[in-house]
Amino acid sequence: MSEVFAARRDRLREYCAASGSAAALVSRPANVRYLTGAAPPGAVLLLGRDEDVLLCAAAPTGQPDEGRPDEALATQVLGSPGGDPAVAAADLAVAHGADSLALEEHDLTVARHRALRAVAPRLRLGDLGGAVEQLRYVKDEEEISCLRIAAEIADQALGELLESILVGRTERHLALELERRLVDHGAESPAFPTSVATGPNAGSPGHVPTDRRVEEGDFLSVCLGAAYRGYRCEIGRTFVIGTTPADWQVELYDLVFAAQRAGREALVPGMPCRDVDRAARQVLDSAGYAAGLTQLTGHGVGLEIDEDPQLAPTAMGKLDACVPVTVEPGVHLPGRGGVRIDDTLVVRPEADGGPELLTITTKELLAL
Amino acid sequence: MSEVFAARRDRLREYCAASGSAAALVSRPANVRYLTGAAPPGAVLLLGRDEDVLLCAAAPTGQPDEGRPDEALATQVLGSPGGDPAVAAADLAVAHGADSLALEEHDLTVARHRALRAVAPRLRLGDLGGAVEQLRYVKDEEEISCLRIAAEIADQALGELLESILVGRTERHLALELERRLVDHGAESPAFPTSVATGPNAGSPGHVPTDRRVEEGDFLSVCLGAAYRGYRCEIGRTFVIGTTPADWQVELYDLVFAAQRAGREALVPGMPCRDVDRAARQVLDSAGYAAGLTQLTGHGVGLEIDEDPQLAPTAMGKLDACVPVTVEPGVHLPGRGGVRIDDTLVVRPEADGGPELLTITTKELLAL
Repeated sequence: MSEVFAARRDRLREYCAASGSAAALVSRPANVRYLTGAAPPGAVLLLGRDEDVLLCAAAPTGQPDEGRPDEALATQVLGSPGGDPAVAAADLAVAHGADSLALEEHDLTVARHRALRAVAPRLRLGDLGGAVEQLRYVKDEEEISCLRIAAEIADQALGELLESILVGRTERHLALELERRLVDHGAESPAFPTSVATGPNAGSPGHVPTDRRVEEGDFLSVCLGAAYRGYRCEIGRTFVIGTTPADWQVELYDLVFAAQRAGREALVPGMPCRDVDRAARQVLDSAGYAAGLTQLTGHGVGLEIDEDPQLAPTAMGKLDACVPVTVEPGVHLPGRGGVRIDDTLVVRPEADGGPELLTITTKELLAL
Repeated sequence: MSEVFAARRDRLREYCAASGSAAALVSRPANVRYLTGAAPPGAVLLLGRDEDVLLCAAAPTGQPDEGRPDEALATQVLGSPGGDPAVAAADLAVAHGADSLALEEHDLTVARHRALRAVAPRLRLGDLGGAVEQLRYVKDEEEISCLRIAAEIADQALGELLESILVGRTERHLALELERRLVDHGAESPAFPTSVATGPNAGSPGHVPTDRRVEEGDFLSVCLGAAYRGYRCEIGRTFVIGTTPADWQVELYDLVFAAQRAGREALVPGMPCRDVDRAARQVLDSAGYAAGLTQLTGHGVGLEIDEDPQLAPTAMGKLDACVPVTVEPGVHLPGRGGVRIDDTLVVRPEADGGPELLTITTKELLAL
């Protein structure tokens, strides 16, 4: 793996050289992990012309949720307690003879920026912007296989839940049980707080589980994901509790399903992100559900659960092959509940069979 | 509760007036919650001369983990998707006639600060610094009673675990079970990721649970906490698995216990924080464990699990009555394991009976 991280750092080094920065300071945790294999709390990466250094506040523990740092990479642990590795990195950049340093201004606070300036007043401080996020946009097959395993874990956890008795249990308990099952099946942790929504809460995006109990006739919507080697996937499904779904439930389900399929089918390399959003959104729009739709119908996933691209009406940019995204339209009717269907897929060219579905749990409307 | 939040905002308003700022922008989530009762994701508080406004990216949901916003407070939900409430607040400050705005420079990123400057180029931007954190330092009785309930929940969760069979179960499972029990007993969520450490891992601060199983003769150390109405407590205990602890285990336990007691007994209003740290640390130091001790032997708790004061050798400042802190010295012997004992207490004057212990689970060395 060491070469993978070194190659990523070399790409960033080329970017810095081209934009006139002698050195770069990477502080956003997911970016540090992408470039070094690890993100101990507070650690930053100093990318120099020749040498790179991972600066940590305390010795990296090599815990699964932090990753193990690239062994070929120099690591420095701060001696003084309470010190800021970013400030130490600016100091080190000067010691290495750098006259300029590009920073992640979307991550560093104004106060840390000022502290950096104070220790290195002659260093020209620039903005690295989203350069590392851009490198992270297209995934390699190693990253995709981590996402594939994460999706498999989420599918297993969800599958087991479907076999258990649901009526009478609270949203909160079901969410905790799903999280336990995720970890049982090998997740480092849930990829994000598991959402379980019943009855009038069903279909509400990002619903935080309450003490409401599952009842006969409810819609039940769940959204969960696993983190595996730092990579995070997402799956969302909606079910009906009881034997026969009501007509309005079947209709609403079919509609959201059609919207989600339209979104999935629009996942083609080169497709503008806003067009993927439009494909899903217009199915719901034309059925009269324009109001109350979420701002996104999907988003990229990777080392963070919510990364580029955004699938939204105002999104810029296009899809590319090997970009993993969620497609997750939904409708929530206040007081009645609703439906949300969410998959993680990888954009693939048609010649390779089109989008690769990572979350394979059935999207039939199951009555549980 | 509304008056409580209004009174807190008035104290901040006085601070701003005294330091020459017409308005303040509070963006750090725990600070927003302290002043408004809620912290919907991304929300900021604009504190004006006369009127305060809570600006949110989306409508506040009133979920327990976000709190309910003060109903007497004006709330604005951003119309445009993807907008930054902080930028909208700067705009609003100008509309309200403010010529200066104090920001939380330790929270705002350089990029957001630049965006603010762009929408309000004539607004004089200052630094609010840790003004709100300072207000949060001493807790009122309402806050302390939330911490008391949080501690009670953690005690209950831990107590139930002690009654179950532990040998053969993994650190990861025990941690998940503790978290489930926390929620069962009314926690909004765990206060921080639960740590369970067995055998050679025991006593290692912040240990992330692994698949190691509990064995006879192990030290088992756990550290957990509950969040209740946003307030977070912490408890840590170490046990021995099996019937009779080995001599080295008893000795090490007694030593850490003595250090922790010395720290607890130093919790007196007016005591310098570094002296509390020294009281606990020197017990371990003089037994030859100076190397490898953690940087802190305790810290404040409240709306965040790790807030002021720090109990550390270089800490500035003094304790005050009604300041809740943890006291949590420990020793970890690489390859052998160790002991950590952690309580949450509230500093009280001697006339009121001295420090109030919130986490009341026994600190005897139990053999489980």
